[in-house]
Amino acid sequence: MDNLMSNPIGVFDSGVGGLTVTREIMRQLPGENIVYFGDTARVPYGSKSKKTVLKYSRQIVRFLQTKNVKAVVVACNTASALALDEIAEEIDIPIIGVVKPGAKMAVETTETGNVGVIGTASTVKSGIYNDYIRELDPHITVVSKACPLFVPLVEEGLIEDRVTDDIVSRYLQEMKEYNVDALVLGCTHYPLIRNAIKRFMGEQVHLVNPAFETAKVLKELLTDKEMLNMSGRRPSYEYYVSDGVESFMSFADSVLPFHVKDTEVIDIESY
Amino acid sequence: MDNLMSNPIGVFDSGVGGLTVTREIMRQLPGENIVYFGDTARVPYGSKSKKTVLKYSRQIVRFLQTKNVKAVVVACNTASALALDEIAEEIDIPIIGVVKPGAKMAVETTETGNVGVIGTASTVKSGIYNDYIRELDPHITVVSKACPLFVPLVEEGLIEDRVTDDIVSRYLQEMKEYNVDALVLGCTHYPLIRNAIKRFMGEQVHLVNPAFETAKVLKELLTDKEMLNMSGRRPSYEYYVSDGVESFMSFADSVLPFHVKDTEVIDIESY
Repeated sequence: MDNLMSNPIGVFDSGVGGLTVTREIMRQLPGENIVYFGDTARVPYGSKSKKTVLKYSRQIVRFLQTKNVKAVVVACNTASALALDEIAEEIDIPIIGVVKPGAKMAVETTETGNVGVIGTASTVKSGIYNDYIRELDPHITVVSKACPLFVPLVEEGLIEDRVTDDIVSRYLQEMKEYNVDALVLGCTHYPLIRNAIKRFMGEQVHLVNPAFETAKVLKELLTDKEMLNMSGRRPSYEYYVSDGVESFMSFADSVLPFHVKDTEVIDIESY
Repeated sequence: MDNLMSNPIGVFDSGVGGLTVTREIMRQLPGENIVYFGDTARVPYGSKSKKTVLKYSRQIVRFLQTKNVKAVVVACNTASALALDEIAEEIDIPIIGVVKPGAKMAVETTETGNVGVIGTASTVKSGIYNDYIRELDPHITVVSKACPLFVPLVEEGLIEDRVTDDIVSRYLQEMKEYNVDALVLGCTHYPLIRNAIKRFMGEQVHLVNPAFETAKVLKELLTDKEMLNMSGRRPSYEYYVSDGVESFMSFADSVLPFHVKDTEVIDIESY
């Protein structure tokens, strides 16, 4: 049992974005070891089909299991939307995604009963945020919108830029018209342009960051199952990618509060 | 021999962009049968490493060979840059890419001796356009620039838009400063925003479209080798993708002068 507690948490994403979730887990669960996998060879998932995203996610979970992870966090909204339920039935360790925690917080936050959800084309098309939100409260109106340009804008570094402000205003215009007061940032890159989104939506709109909520849920889960790492030892963090160590490392440096020294490339198609 | 002539030409790309090359082949070689493969599951290649792009390209060429193609056209600048030379040594049918024909036309066109090249991060980083251009004329100055936002802007349909004009002016500002008079559109999506590029660069700058030049080179090659299809029969076109038939079909409709009826999904990782 002690061995299980010190086993790492496996976190995966289609690429680098899941590091924003990893950062929250490090903050809220500072005793846990973490193995991160970013599928940088096959990124992005946001425009891919359910079948493909499920196949890729299964390969990654098989890889993470070779690292003896005690739990898996799907730090990718698209994979959480398209692959989580199936995989949860196939493995015998706990697995959580970012969608349910984000949906729950949106329901708890809204007062007008109008919730907005933004994400990739696949996440929005899946309708999964809507499903979870309506399950918790069928009276809530959900307005969802795919924002395909946000990820490339973030990756191009246009965090504070008139072009980003312009695109934000076009994508989110209807959120204002529907008078939403809680907006779920349903893609791991979006918290990085939260200032631009806040400027357009106004201070009265609560921006829900599923990364933060997911780390909270993970902590509750590990506490419930008596699986929290209480060793008191300094945690170890391992990073694996399917391609492009360089660009991964530079993004990691912009998200994590320390420098990532080693990242290993894995042939993920062989898992 | 007659059988060989009627065998199809295999054309592949990381996704949908290669259809702009296919369109040129259909125009200039109206008698040829074509098998197109778009790697829509693993798109984009432009941010991936040489090793990964080479692996993916090899899988695709193996797939195309099961269709008895008589020649292969690498309709992707990134794969032409990173994988063509290796694969050419591994197969016994002719294979051509879009880079050499584009480079050749740029050299023939420039009068100032200053040539611009724009493309994905991987194409630009490979320096392959520079190498080919300098090989043809060592006195030419090559100014190259990665334009990662152009593809997402095109795919979001912002062809004529102030945001696209704004991004064009930022990426291409230094092309003006270097006084380039020939600019290679080194990514298959870029010809779709040629008007925006032309507006910024001015009428005096010649935009080189490697798709057009590649179809010309293919015609010369097939003529030389006496492999042109002279059957006089109406050509057949087949389309294969690794994911997402729907979005492929809608892009195809915007590029090709007819409706694509059937597209088949292939498990490309198994080749």
